[in-house]
Amino acid sequence: MPSITVGQYLLNRLKEINIDVVFGVPGDFNMPLLDLIEDDKNLLWGNNANELNAAYAADGYARIRGAGALVTTFGVGELSALNGVAGSYSEMLPVIHIVGTPSTKSQAAGAMLHHSLGDGNFDVFYQMSTKITAAATHLKKQGALAEIDRVISKAVLSKRTGYIGIPIDLIKYEVEVPDHLPPLLVDLPKNPVQTQEIALKVVTDAIAKASHPIIIVDGCVLRHGCQKQVEEFIERSGFPTYVAPMGKGAVDESNPNYRGCYSGNITLESVNEEARKADLIIEIGSIKSDFNTGNFTYSLDRSKTITLHSFATIVFCAEYQKVSMMEFIPLLTASLPKEPRHFELGPRGKPEPVKEGTEITHNYFWHKVPEYMQENAIICAETGTAEFACLNMDGPKGSTYITQFLWGSIGFSVGAAVGAALANRSRKVYLFVGDGSFQLTAQELSVFLRHGLTPVIFLLNNDGYLIEKLIHGPDRSYNNFQMWKYHKALDFFGGDLEKNLANGSSKVGFQDKVSTRVEFEEAMKTIQGQPDKIHFIEVIMPQFDAPRELELLVALSENR
Amino acid sequence: MPSITVGQYLLNRLKEINIDVVFGVPGDFNMPLLDLIEDDKNLLWGNNANELNAAYAADGYARIRGAGALVTTFGVGELSALNGVAGSYSEMLPVIHIVGTPSTKSQAAGAMLHHSLGDGNFDVFYQMSTKITAAATHLKKQGALAEIDRVISKAVLSKRTGYIGIPIDLIKYEVEVPDHLPPLLVDLPKNPVQTQEIALKVVTDAIAKASHPIIIVDGCVLRHGCQKQVEEFIERSGFPTYVAPMGKGAVDESNPNYRGCYSGNITLESVNEEARKADLIIEIGSIKSDFNTGNFTYSLDRSKTITLHSFATIVFCAEYQKVSMMEFIPLLTASLPKEPRHFELGPRGKPEPVKEGTEITHNYFWHKVPEYMQENAIICAETGTAEFACLNMDGPKGSTYITQFLWGSIGFSVGAAVGAALANRSRKVYLFVGDGSFQLTAQELSVFLRHGLTPVIFLLNNDGYLIEKLIHGPDRSYNNFQMWKYHKALDFFGGDLEKNLANGSSKVGFQDKVSTRVEFEEAMKTIQGQPDKIHFIEVIMPQFDAPRELELLVALSENR
Repeated sequence: MPSITVGQYLLNRLKEINIDVVFGVPGDFNMPLLDLIEDDKNLLWGNNANELNAAYAADGYARIRGAGALVTTFGVGELSALNGVAGSYSEMLPVIHIVGTPSTKSQAAGAMLHHSLGDGNFDVFYQMSTKITAAATHLKKQGALAEIDRVISKAVLSKRTGYIGIPIDLIKYEVEVPDHLPPLLVDLPKNPVQTQEIALKVVTDAIAKASHPIIIVDGCVLRHGCQKQVEEFIERSGFPTYVAPMGKGAVDESNPNYRGCYSGNITLESVNEEARKADLIIEIGSIKSDFNTGNFTYSLDRSKTITLHSFATIVFCAEYQKVSMMEFIPLLTASLPKEPRHFELGPRGKPEPVKEGTEITHNYFWHKVPEYMQENAIICAETGTAEFACLNMDGPKGSTYITQFLWGSIGFSVGAAVGAALANRSRKVYLFVGDGSFQLTAQELSVFLRHGLTPVIFLLNNDGYLIEKLIHGPDRSYNNFQMWKYHKALDFFGGDLEKNLANGSSKVGFQDKVSTRVEFEEAMKTIQGQPDKIHFIEVIMPQFDAPRELELLVALSENR
Repeated sequence: MPSITVGQYLLNRLKEINIDVVFGVPGDFNMPLLDLIEDDKNLLWGNNANELNAAYAADGYARIRGAGALVTTFGVGELSALNGVAGSYSEMLPVIHIVGTPSTKSQAAGAMLHHSLGDGNFDVFYQMSTKITAAATHLKKQGALAEIDRVISKAVLSKRTGYIGIPIDLIKYEVEVPDHLPPLLVDLPKNPVQTQEIALKVVTDAIAKASHPIIIVDGCVLRHGCQKQVEEFIERSGFPTYVAPMGKGAVDESNPNYRGCYSGNITLESVNEEARKADLIIEIGSIKSDFNTGNFTYSLDRSKTITLHSFATIVFCAEYQKVSMMEFIPLLTASLPKEPRHFELGPRGKPEPVKEGTEITHNYFWHKVPEYMQENAIICAETGTAEFACLNMDGPKGSTYITQFLWGSIGFSVGAAVGAALANRSRKVYLFVGDGSFQLTAQELSVFLRHGLTPVIFLLNNDGYLIEKLIHGPDRSYNNFQMWKYHKALDFFGGDLEKNLANGSSKVGFQDKVSTRVEFEEAMKTIQGQPDKIHFIEVIMPQFDAPRELELLVALSENR
């Protein structure tokens, strides 16, 4: 039988799930694995500035390619990444967290090693990670390969995170594998036949009876990668279609069936009125979290609602367990009449028009900025102003939106944008991040530069944590912080530094601040004209100005 | 009975343990607590750039004042801090991690809130923290005050971390307290009388018989704040005295009894020879971790060793349980003859002299830099080159050394230096950090500026992760990263920015890079002449040059 090292086996399994970049930070317990990554011509090392940023990058990457991975070192490194990993768990991204741990010999001896709690317990961090992963393992020589398969399969199938602790001496430990290794088991289990047949009949009957059916597409459609099946259902049915915030980007907004973003009481008024007239609501992949539902003001009648989930189909509160949308939707589409139904609803609801002025307000900014953006954009919108502003933004065709409506960790967007940019270099990344959030993860800017990436970075500077100020303590000192010279960021982080350029560093284009609409528009023309460069534009905004959707959400969040 | 809010009660207890700065980052579940902090004239809000840095700051602060605290928000914030908190646990610092959590109502309802895993479990992060704290609680209305007392007392007494989750609605919830609230119970339990008497007799007998007794002072002396008792023991005994790496700074090095740093096979040769001649070794507060013992080459004969711990006294392998050094050492000192014994050992061992040259080598740098430093310095030395170089540095009198020999988290020193600087504004902070480590936590520089602090920051630039390169993969790409314009850091992070100056921001002094000895010495004169300013000096060092001690340690660490 041929043999393979445990480390290379692990990397091969990662490649099987579409991974070609592994994020992370070196540490003395993981470096042999980094040797294997660096020597593998089908893998790139992410080279992140710290572990939290690496976890964010793996998350952003997984949102584009379906799965992500990061490598950290025992104790210090892995714990730094936990917020990012928990975010991937919460938001349902299969990210594999690989941790280099002390040698099996040191572990067996209970040695008092650096990076440990000094108590000889080498499972304590692994145990912590079991709380935020769908599957976790701390490898031993016996059964290492099976454990690797178990964790990765479970993560991919459940769209959750996995943890693999690998003792340093196991990384290059040779084990035998069969001549023809079976592929990783990541096929979905089949839906139960009879339950599905009954569910299909009930749903098609309900659809046939409805006079004003609507579809609401949500985040799990993106997570389970069934946008195409959903699109076919929308086309064939002809039903008016909405997205929930976490579903933004799952539906082609140029489709005439598309009617806007539905999110309870923060929905645009005309859209809200229209959706509430429905006598049948078909929710697909819905996630009923506070920020995804206008703080629990979703309030469409459950007795009129059919929900298609990955784990069940629910019809008017009756659950058909294990009837998963991935298999069910194509069957449902096929059961519909050949000709789509037609609904006369008038023009699509629009956000309020731009008000006159010279200042760069949110109302102006989010109307204007799409004019300068490329199609198939990847839009990374930070928690707070940017994520809510995107809901009703008329973004470029084919755009993907990367936000954290559920986990909501500030600073996430910067790392996620690095991951997304590496996941598909042919798509343009636009990062929208506030000054407060940027401060948490700013160093990751240097990783864009290192890899020669060319995003456009918008630093929305409103001098403080605006979302916090809206929630509590607008005049409090704790909601403010040191003002940085943000617009010099690319310069500081080594853009165009001769030392780096040999390394394929990004060429720097625009880097300055703008505080009027004229300046902004001039800058955007420059940026648009240099698609092969990285740009950083600091946008000075009025201090308490906020997108309408965020203001409404905050008002609804009181006394939570 | 008078009443008090649970939040204010918690803050009052923190003040009782000598805390006057609370570190952290605002989040929507903790802001009412930040109101109380901001309104309390005896507390300052730390205003950190992110949660990991806040945890490092609380750790550095605790190393100066005996205890520290940080406030984060549920999920996202608290998990970001875990590496820092675990470091405090590992290195025995009583840091209280306070987390604002969702309201008791939302928790009871199992609501799908932002910052949660979406599963209605609000105890999962608290459970993770139980693994890295000596005591933890997630407060409920019933018994909240007693729980606060339990966690803080336990943390202070055990010199470990504590976790207090406080639901947002409990922060300002009023509870009754007695007229005369008893103080927090932080008194040490008394040693068992008979056991202690026997131990004392055995130890004094052993001392009387020894012809070459030595003392080795280690980190737990600093943690338990018994430097004065130890000093009296050293003076009265007259015994040659050494420090272990983690004990550096616990002994006044101008004391003629002081003979150097002992750390197994990385000890200076002459010092090592001398120590190995001992026929009685009295270890005080020892921590036998890999990096503290020359990778387990400590190797002094246990049959000749007496160890005074906080939890026991061990004489030639016989353990006297619960005979704690804090009570035992003064008794031992009192039992010694009035006149100290005298030992003829010749001049103290010194590191090798400075070699000629123009480059700023480690050999040159660590000899030279103390000439420019103030007495009573706080020296924050990052994991890697700086921490090992400090072992044999002839630092200023009265200096405190802040390093992480056990936990070893890179980037720690930057946050810790902020905490230390706020803990005692009358002492000068010197931060020595490598380029690699700096990248993890660089944004915390802006917090020095925000608080008007005046440290001297040495950025030791050797273009890569040097400690990693010495251990594994010197030519590997993964041990390198984007070069920044480090010397512009204070400028980028808003030093001297008009906007900040009104806020009491630090005045910026020297900020440039130096690559020759002449440049370095000129710069240091400038820095010395401006003690009321913050300085940032980027020191360009040869890429593979390392302190002797680090090279030896790495050589000893192979195959761990």
